[in-house]
Amino acid sequence: MTSNPSQAIFEHFSRVSSILSKYDLDLNTRRTILDTVDVLAAEPPRVTYQEVQCPGTCKPAIWCEPLDAPASHVILYVHGGGGFTGSPSAYRKLAAHIALASGVRTLVLDYRLAPEHPFPAGLDDVVTAYQWLSRQKKIPSENIALVGDSAGAGIALCSIIRLKQLKADLPAAVAAVCPWVDMELTGETYDSNADKDAIGSRAGLEAMAAMLLNGASPKSPLVNALYADFSGYVSLYIVGAGDEVFLDDARRLAVLAKEKDVDVYLEIATGMQHDFVFMAGRAPEADATIQRLGDWMKLKLRLK
Amino acid sequence: MTSNPSQAIFEHFSRVSSILSKYDLDLNTRRTILDTVDVLAAEPPRVTYQEVQCPGTCKPAIWCEPLDAPASHVILYVHGGGGFTGSPSAYRKLAAHIALASGVRTLVLDYRLAPEHPFPAGLDDVVTAYQWLSRQKKIPSENIALVGDSAGAGIALCSIIRLKQLKADLPAAVAAVCPWVDMELTGETYDSNADKDAIGSRAGLEAMAAMLLNGASPKSPLVNALYADFSGYVSLYIVGAGDEVFLDDARRLAVLAKEKDVDVYLEIATGMQHDFVFMAGRAPEADATIQRLGDWMKLKLRLK
Repeated sequence: MTSNPSQAIFEHFSRVSSILSKYDLDLNTRRTILDTVDVLAAEPPRVTYQEVQCPGTCKPAIWCEPLDAPASHVILYVHGGGGFTGSPSAYRKLAAHIALASGVRTLVLDYRLAPEHPFPAGLDDVVTAYQWLSRQKKIPSENIALVGDSAGAGIALCSIIRLKQLKADLPAAVAAVCPWVDMELTGETYDSNADKDAIGSRAGLEAMAAMLLNGASPKSPLVNALYADFSGYVSLYIVGAGDEVFLDDARRLAVLAKEKDVDVYLEIATGMQHDFVFMAGRAPEADATIQRLGDWMKLKLRLK
Repeated sequence: MTSNPSQAIFEHFSRVSSILSKYDLDLNTRRTILDTVDVLAAEPPRVTYQEVQCPGTCKPAIWCEPLDAPASHVILYVHGGGGFTGSPSAYRKLAAHIALASGVRTLVLDYRLAPEHPFPAGLDDVVTAYQWLSRQKKIPSENIALVGDSAGAGIALCSIIRLKQLKADLPAAVAAVCPWVDMELTGETYDSNADKDAIGSRAGLEAMAAMLLNGASPKSPLVNALYADFSGYVSLYIVGAGDEVFLDDARRLAVLAKEKDVDVYLEIATGMQHDFVFMAGRAPEADATIQRLGDWMKLKLRLK
């Protein structure tokens, strides 16, 4: 471990990248190693957990419930992992930190992953879970928000587009932390930040996009929100990390949303790695971003 | 996943053993892969977590606190992992299941590991943590119990011997789940159960013992409780798994304790793998053993 806590994720990602490039590991072992990112986060206090089987999914989701959080409000958390890895276990601590900062109980969904289940399986699972939540009488849709990171933020963003197609009631808000949406990797920061980003590489992302798309168009607004029409979109919080290759995704999403008069807030976390919020409870930069996101969420969910 | 939940740990250990034998992975990656055993356990409900820095250790321990557990009673949990792996993170869920079944808040210690820190570093850390707890006014030593699994059970067992040497106040009880104490691998089940045990092998255990001992005698009663004098020992609960190579360790410990009139209870879980309690919340055999252990613990800590 480093003496600078905000560098811990750089060292972790560098170590993981080095293992994955050194050994020709099978898919499940690569998932196992990537899912260790949660060691970076501290255990959040005053949160209980409960597994729940959501309709249409195989493995249980995890409720992260801060003591005293109201039953009436919910965050649906869509974890990252490039669409091929990640799990409720690996994102429990991060989601619980966001739950604490927002004062909102948070459900970490176990959506289906590529390559076994390419697009739109994950999107379908998120939409199904949202509809399952919003059908519950005590949780009106305006009391629900979606939060996602990385590829999970991409799915969360697109799920609003899908809900609009379905003419369903929309949630109050979406927070996209270090979103990955650009399946074509056209953003400038895919090159200009390549040397700084310890986990995102063009070759790796091309492989993930191919698994996820499985022949589908990378320009579909249901898999790449840069092609979406943001008219009538919900309140949107976007976090971009200064040193991530995905930074231009965050910036371009904010521009597109602003053009359509969406209530959008963009935070750029200078000098930070992709998904730096995983250092929650250990690094002040992660805690500051999560607290801002939580305060914003309280406003959008009318909890203060 | 299998349709028989009690076989899930066999499949997990078989997969892990196969990865570790197939790839020549560095130590930290081996630790990462072994520490994934916690995916087997369900999230225990109604427990909160809190990190705490124990004196003399580098990394924080984790408090697992069931809602409504009294502040006055504590289980000190000593995790397994052959003395070279394991962490509070990886044992949080298992410890929390035991905390729930006992109604006792449980501290999962991050003790020092071999080969960086061979014997007696881990033992010293456990003794230090116990003494730190028992110095707290509201927690008299008779309100403390130690629980450990595998190599952690071995350390927990030996820590009582060390506390007796130090003429310190002893805790009320120790529970040793699938204990590994025999550093010489002399038990018959190291051979007779070799084909059934999906994780314990003579070659692997010899390597672990060598790392842990680092030249120390395998016959020291502080590293191998089979050489300990059990006179005046605390109440003792021992679980042996029917299909583990360590089964004879459990049996022989029970005999040695009984010879010295120790209050000892031996449970043999027929047909079960080493550390099968990791299936807590998913397999009835794990839940039954944990509930029996919890009920016993309540009695020994005078909570019912």
